[in-house]
Amino acid sequence: MSELIEQLRAALPADAVRTDPDVLRSYAADTAGFCPAGRPAALVLPRTVEQVQHVLRTAHARQVPVVPQGARTGLSGAANAVEGCLLLSLVRMDRILEIDPVDRIAVVEPGVVNARLSRAVAEHGLSYPPDPSSWETCTIGGNIGTGSGGLCCVKYGVTAEYVLGLDVVLADGRLLSTGRRTAKGVAGYDLTRLIVGSEGSLGIVVRAVLGLRAQPPRQLALAAEFPSAAAACDAVCRIMAAGHTPALLELMDRTTLRAVNEMTKMGLPETTEALLLAAFDTPDPVPELRAVEDLCTAAGASGVVPAADPAESELLLQARRAALTALEAVKGTSMIDDVCVPRSRLADMLEGTAEIAERYGLTIGVCAHAGDGNTHPTVCFDAADEDEARRARESFDAIMELGLRLGGTITGEHGVGLLKKEWLARELGEVSLELHRAVKAAFDPTGILNPGKLF
Amino acid sequence: MSELIEQLRAALPADAVRTDPDVLRSYAADTAGFCPAGRPAALVLPRTVEQVQHVLRTAHARQVPVVPQGARTGLSGAANAVEGCLLLSLVRMDRILEIDPVDRIAVVEPGVVNARLSRAVAEHGLSYPPDPSSWETCTIGGNIGTGSGGLCCVKYGVTAEYVLGLDVVLADGRLLSTGRRTAKGVAGYDLTRLIVGSEGSLGIVVRAVLGLRAQPPRQLALAAEFPSAAAACDAVCRIMAAGHTPALLELMDRTTLRAVNEMTKMGLPETTEALLLAAFDTPDPVPELRAVEDLCTAAGASGVVPAADPAESELLLQARRAALTALEAVKGTSMIDDVCVPRSRLADMLEGTAEIAERYGLTIGVCAHAGDGNTHPTVCFDAADEDEARRARESFDAIMELGLRLGGTITGEHGVGLLKKEWLARELGEVSLELHRAVKAAFDPTGILNPGKLF
Repeated sequence: MSELIEQLRAALPADAVRTDPDVLRSYAADTAGFCPAGRPAALVLPRTVEQVQHVLRTAHARQVPVVPQGARTGLSGAANAVEGCLLLSLVRMDRILEIDPVDRIAVVEPGVVNARLSRAVAEHGLSYPPDPSSWETCTIGGNIGTGSGGLCCVKYGVTAEYVLGLDVVLADGRLLSTGRRTAKGVAGYDLTRLIVGSEGSLGIVVRAVLGLRAQPPRQLALAAEFPSAAAACDAVCRIMAAGHTPALLELMDRTTLRAVNEMTKMGLPETTEALLLAAFDTPDPVPELRAVEDLCTAAGASGVVPAADPAESELLLQARRAALTALEAVKGTSMIDDVCVPRSRLADMLEGTAEIAERYGLTIGVCAHAGDGNTHPTVCFDAADEDEARRARESFDAIMELGLRLGGTITGEHGVGLLKKEWLARELGEVSLELHRAVKAAFDPTGILNPGKLF
Repeated sequence: MSELIEQLRAALPADAVRTDPDVLRSYAADTAGFCPAGRPAALVLPRTVEQVQHVLRTAHARQVPVVPQGARTGLSGAANAVEGCLLLSLVRMDRILEIDPVDRIAVVEPGVVNARLSRAVAEHGLSYPPDPSSWETCTIGGNIGTGSGGLCCVKYGVTAEYVLGLDVVLADGRLLSTGRRTAKGVAGYDLTRLIVGSEGSLGIVVRAVLGLRAQPPRQLALAAEFPSAAAACDAVCRIMAAGHTPALLELMDRTTLRAVNEMTKMGLPETTEALLLAAFDTPDPVPELRAVEDLCTAAGASGVVPAADPAESELLLQARRAALTALEAVKGTSMIDDVCVPRSRLADMLEGTAEIAERYGLTIGVCAHAGDGNTHPTVCFDAADEDEARRARESFDAIMELGLRLGGTITGEHGVGLLKKEWLARELGEVSLELHRAVKAAFDPTGILNPGKLF
């Protein structure tokens, strides 16, 4: 062990190799519940590509597992330590190397925080759309590792669609460049996309070329109240079938609304069974908002509140932003799921989740990126109550099973990590799983990169 | 040999296994120049997934190479026969299985022609954007194999962005399902994107779930004439830097314009050194077209012609659509390249291509998806003139070298096939190439799928 540390320190500054037990403990896990974390041998905090290569070469020579980490805001345990591993934190590699408004790209290191990049490109009239809830703290490297989404996806897609090229340190320390700086390119296999969402199991991202968009106008929103979740889901289907492409289309169920009211005293209508938020960021969003209002009314909305201006839109969105914290407050602990179904099955997903909540005697609030069919059923429980915690875990699994039954996926944007690895096997099936293992072996034959995650 | 045919016929109708030499010859190659084609052992034309599985099982057992084909409109030799292979044509698997306006997806077989799908989804108010020039004849399976683009890409991206999930018959006949039917999903490695653009070297696509968009309004275009290619490229940079996102942004150089004039008698201004076409498909494109007109003028445009309506826009685009045929007519044969550079280097790419034309004593016309930096330098030559043909091939290579030097890629949308395999190795470098080989081995350990293509 001390030999390992010595070897690491040969090419890394002293403060970049940490072994203090308190520090190791505090870095050992991400934000997921129900995921075990092992005891790391050390934490390394490199600042350069060469330092990352040294770490990997050292780990590879000694066959020590390496677990890469960003801000550890992940929700699946993908960044949790495995026993005796090196925790490889990329947070100190946080430079924005380039922003180019003509080529509409940014070149960044993995430790750049999402919000910092978003603000930096905004100064050039550009936008980096992916906006996970944790955007103020999560890193681009973490977003790439998990394939993050956010509210923007219904119009602007997920992280993967903005990653044009990567520099990746391989398991043995070699440097791989994938992809391109150009708008298009089909030279060879799409290794870039293979790395995105691979949760550090194929290589360590040390640099990314990201595609940017022109900054859209500020969005204008409306809120629509519905007497049932089914009616809100019907509105979602009508909106999408009519050819609208909102910049966001979010749903909150009654449980979520009550939790938000309780916490924020916003005074949302307590009788509402579901609230839909729709926003458009086109040059003139008013006609589309009016059409959406009519579609909501046709689907049975009991009331529609259009925002007068972007500031009022922001107020409407605050309830949505408060949802997870509010649900967490209900029973002290919450566990957020991430099941995505075809949007035509959204109503079935919500109905089924309500049944699961009843069956397990639990409070489960649902907020959803409804335009994508991506639901976040959030199980509220008292972690100190062993029986309730067990039921929480079981209900979580029942929700994934429901999602698969409805033609969906166990994860729309949070990833698999430790939390869902058994479920990934069920979703993929044996042929796909076998190919996953073969691809993993092609990149990391001795299996030192984030072992035991994903599959 | 006859044993192979017998075995194939055991599970395929008689007319689905062809061995007539004339038929084999006519299927032996795609549309690329300078690419050798071997003599196939047979042509198979399955209609079902099970038949494709039977073909692969048979080929795998006997270690016979398999070359998948769509409409053979490809431009890189990826669909060319290798000696003794089975040509596996997917054109009879041409059913559109599903179009769903709520989930905005289509489920199709690989032999569906691009234009047929585009028209079918338009009836539901939807759009399938990828629009390669060959869209009236090329198949979705071929588009997926090569990762096709088109005029739409500057706003709507390439084929890869519309492929959500695939059914793929593997080298040994097993069936792999990748991806999803949902708008989002990050369950496991992105095998879907790995298959897209892999030119049949990893598996045979037998079904695809495609993402669709709402149909945009009909586009309105303008044409701008420039006294130099550099000025036109400057306009492209100004347009993109100002935050515009045209639905297309196309450039034609003087050589192309003269060829089009010669063929079509359109009466384009012969003094123009470069013509830029820009179009917008927003609800109100007029303000953006005016802004683009001003930017073109500022970049030195000698004249700008805005279309009065979509019909006039269509007339403006006819010159662009005629470009390749017109260049082909110059000397009887043409060879189209596909180098994509960062759009900030577009002027350097055009200038360098003009120098190459002069150095090799050849006519090279350039049309470009300028908004993407994707140039199609087209070498015009007399194939009967051995020396000219040799110079044509050499100039083609010089163009790729130039593209790489400018930070570009050897292929923006046409693929690698046989034509560019040496160049792919140069673009990727040894580490990436080694991983490509390992990924190939993970999918096709015995190497029967489209051997000798790509790398």
